[in-house]
Amino acid sequence: MDNRAIGIFDSGVGGLSSVKKMLSDHPEESILYFGDTGRAPYGSRTREEIVSMSLQDVHFLRTFDLKAILIACNTITVCSLKALREANPDIPIIGVVDSAAEAAARATKNRKVGVIATKATIDSDAYAQKIKEFAPDTEVFSAACPKFVPLIEAGKISPENEELAAAIREYCTELKEAGVDTLILGCTHYPLIAEAVGLFMGEGVQLIDSGAEPVKTVIRMLEEKEALAEKEKEGKEFYFCSGDVDAFGYVADLFLKKDISSKSMRINIENF
Amino acid sequence: MDNRAIGIFDSGVGGLSSVKKMLSDHPEESILYFGDTGRAPYGSRTREEIVSMSLQDVHFLRTFDLKAILIACNTITVCSLKALREANPDIPIIGVVDSAAEAAARATKNRKVGVIATKATIDSDAYAQKIKEFAPDTEVFSAACPKFVPLIEAGKISPENEELAAAIREYCTELKEAGVDTLILGCTHYPLIAEAVGLFMGEGVQLIDSGAEPVKTVIRMLEEKEALAEKEKEGKEFYFCSGDVDAFGYVADLFLKKDISSKSMRINIENF
Repeated sequence: MDNRAIGIFDSGVGGLSSVKKMLSDHPEESILYFGDTGRAPYGSRTREEIVSMSLQDVHFLRTFDLKAILIACNTITVCSLKALREANPDIPIIGVVDSAAEAAARATKNRKVGVIATKATIDSDAYAQKIKEFAPDTEVFSAACPKFVPLIEAGKISPENEELAAAIREYCTELKEAGVDTLILGCTHYPLIAEAVGLFMGEGVQLIDSGAEPVKTVIRMLEEKEALAEKEKEGKEFYFCSGDVDAFGYVADLFLKKDISSKSMRINIENF
Repeated sequence: MDNRAIGIFDSGVGGLSSVKKMLSDHPEESILYFGDTGRAPYGSRTREEIVSMSLQDVHFLRTFDLKAILIACNTITVCSLKALREANPDIPIIGVVDSAAEAAARATKNRKVGVIATKATIDSDAYAQKIKEFAPDTEVFSAACPKFVPLIEAGKISPENEELAAAIREYCTELKEAGVDTLILGCTHYPLIAEAVGLFMGEGVQLIDSGAEPVKTVIRMLEEKEALAEKEKEGKEFYFCSGDVDAFGYVADLFLKKDISSKSMRINIENF
């Protein structure tokens, strides 16, 4: 039994899709979220910048007494997981790629999997490699989607939104024509446009939520270590961001469908 | 208008008497409290240790976007106020001594003021000096009370508690015999034993709460800078401690008469 919080972080607000899954499935777990909204997006930065910034993010998180850290960001996972674990050997750090890749490998029937993600994630080839570890005969079709995150953060997430529809056509037409039956939403922002992407891809295509999947991995790991929180207690929630806290609250509401502004505070990430 | 939080800190839980005053008089102000419960009490440490630890405390507080900092601790105020201001010239830092000294100088009729506080505060002679600045003809009678803080943190605060009554007799008899008409509770823990101290001193003696007085000073300063929070919004509350968070919640309840455990988190102050 361990009632300490789980640290969850992202370059911005996308990681809230992991928070949402945790809150709904495991309300007894305490969550401490950090979104580096003041420096987001990370997706188009160099690998060196991403590593250096995510080391700061984890340094901030370690201000608190945590039992595990979930990197709720595909870009940070592919660029920094190794460096973060090396710098923090005394706490379990879980990334988002493995869980979603494994779920996709299990889900595909026709062995054709699509991945949509930021440029940094696609360039890393991490999803394709990991899927092939789990299911070597799988073909992986990837598309970098730089327009999605800005659209989502601007609240343009409805399937009726024309800008969003045009971006989806641009990025997903090739994957659709390739006949993938499983599509990894390889950025934790994308669950917010799952409806629009699903409509475009068609009913036969199963979407894998890279924010939700790793929550199951974290819980499994804690269970094995007998470090889950007491079921009887309600978990605490703390939210920190490095950018404007009102803007953060507005977008957080899109993800979580609840007002977290009384639990949110801006921090100075440059101090770490 | 400035909706950023006010940082309030103390070596332990005593500073919650300032929080209590702020919550009741200015619920629109956001509060970020830190109690260094893992290293408390400071009162019997050397001046150098107190300066070094309080610099760390403020370094932690500056993780957040604050508009002012209140040192809700007499010991830290007398030892570190100057060093803290020198290290943090870009944020207003207010101590607790001046406000309580001024209130006492205004309150006394017979020009006999008593001060009870920790050893470090009494040794500094800060209260006597400051009271004489405001009212030069005042006699000041001081007593260091090392047993009070441990008794209070153990919840022994009832006037019926024999251990507490014995300690009050030990420390306050001389002040009573000197005929003080005003007594400064020169440690932010002491408001919790105000009832017991008041009963011993007698009805004619006015008690000055060194936790509550400086809150008025902070508000006046913010008002002059037009930096008060919007009246219409409810302030946020965040509580951090460096020791056991459940123990913190238990004592916090004594001060605030409400459960703040969902808003409390342990931090690693050594990282700062």
